[in-house]
Amino acid sequence: MDTMMMDAMKSGDMMSMRGMPAMDMAMMQRCMDACAACEQACTVCAMQGMDCAPACMNCADMCNTMMRSMLRMQGMTPAVMMSMLDACMAMCQMCMDMCMAHSNDDVCMMCAQACKACMDACMEMKTAMMAAA
Amino acid sequence: MDTMMMDAMKSGDMMSMRGMPAMDMAMMQRCMDACAACEQACTVCAMQGMDCAPACMNCADMCNTMMRSMLRMQGMTPAVMMSMLDACMAMCQMCMDMCMAHSNDDVCMMCAQACKACMDACMEMKTAMMAAA
Amino acid sequence: MDTMMMDAMKSGDMMSMRGMPAMDMAMMQRCMDACAACEQACTVCAMQGMDCAPACMNCADMCNTMMRSMLRMQGMTPAVMMSMLDACMAMCQMCMDMCMAHSNDDVCMMCAQACKACMDACMEMKTAMMAAA
Amino acid sequence: MDTMMMDAMKSGDMMSMRGMPAMDMAMMQRCMDACAACEQACTVCAMQGMDCAPACMNCADMCNTMMRSMLRMQGMTPAVMMSMLDACMAMCQMCMDMCMAHSNDDVCMMCAQACKACMDACMEMKTAMMAAA
Repeated sequence: MDTMMMDAMKSGDMMSMRGMPAMDMAMMQRCMDACAACEQACTVCAMQGMDCAPACMNCADMCNTMMRSMLRMQGMTPAVMMSMLDACMAMCQMCMDMCMAHSNDDVCMMCAQACKACMDACMEMKTAMMAAA
Repeated sequence: MDTMMMDAMKSGDMMSMRGMPAMDMAMMQRCMDACAACEQACTVCAMQGMDCAPACMNCADMCNTMMRSMLRMQGMTPAVMMSMLDACMAMCQMCMDMCMAHSNDDVCMMCAQACKACMDACMEMKTAMMAAA
Repeated sequence: MDTMMMDAMKSGDMMSMRGMPAMDMAMMQRCMDACAACEQACTVCAMQGMDCAPACMNCADMCNTMMRSMLRMQGMTPAVMMSMLDACMAMCQMCMDMCMAHSNDDVCMMCAQACKACMDACMEMKTAMMAAA
Repeated sequence: MDTMMMDAMKSGDMMSMRGMPAMDMAMMQRCMDACAACEQACTVCAMQGMDCAPACMNCADMCNTMMRSMLRMQGMTPAVMMSMLDACMAMCQMCMDMCMAHSNDDVCMMCAQACKACMDACMEMKTAMMAAA
């Protein structure tokens, strides 16, 4: 996400969740970027017609929904956000596991990498939220 | 979802999750229909420009992702499905709570009703899965 | 879409586009239902890993976007709506053509049928809009 | 989109459309990035509850569908792609016009800028395709 847009959101207090201190902007940006990259990688990987495809399609949709939700923090409570992060991490884990089984396929390897990065970024967010709670 | 399509999916064994006995088709259909109806109600409600709008948009996206995932059971494990159901129920609950505060707005009341129906259908699925596990 | 929701939208004047007389509600409802059914059929068909899968995934996304746009008529002009309908019909046509080539696959046949129904409903909308313009 | 992923797609011939010479990768990447940035900007702008919100939501969905379609070129013909580009440009134009009317709102100004960039990138694609046809 564009830096100017992040600044505009911050100044307009658009990032604050109900009942939660404002999040670290750089961390959120990392997480949204990881979700967007994962959606794209999974969309490409799903097209290969391998047995990971259904998991990849599910993961692409969940990552897009996760990213959009982070752009709409006012529409979440910390509890809802935690639950969404859990679902996103679970979906990424499964997609990664399926793709890792195709270790000689370049697209699957990159999809697995993107899933791992998305899981890590979601976990960073969850850890920070639990520390702040 | 169309009955003929459900039959085609069933015969093709497309509804079976890895490591899970086949789900009750009628229950799944109820849940997918409730998700689809909730996505539509939330999409309409979000357009009103009230303070429930961000929650409604989040809920519309989550319900669509939930519905699509149920059409792609091969791309989920029972654990991932449970986690998605939890996130969907949490999001519906929040959206319902926000809309219930606007008790004199017809669209919000219908949106809250659709959220409640979606939560109930997701809970029915979760309960059945826990019993089968 | 639920009848009560349609009534609420109508009474709230949520269905009127800028610079366009109000649309026929029953026709719009048919079109949204056809889009939703097509999204679901394409989502299922895409999972089969056949060569129609990329077209099915594109069609599922376009039909969902088309349906949501019709729920948000205030966010379109007649010209934009026409352009969206054209894109949706073109995408449905391609998906139908790909699936028709698999005439001994039940899911593909139902997907093709859903694409045809969606195209027809979009054409009905376009024809009505051109007559009203 | 990640450079490594683009390379993997290219080597796997995943970017070639039926009946169309392979597209310029750098141009496609610019267009997908512009669509992704526009989806994010519109998602944020839609949350402000201003009269541009319905157009912003429509534009966010259309841009996501456009971006995903470009990641799934095998699921489009040149004619379908042209039609999608037209719809995306029309939607971006409308969203930009609505947001430009709010010239003292920072988020709307950035949303309008993102819509303009997306339109330009789509036009670049269309022009290249028409030249190649």
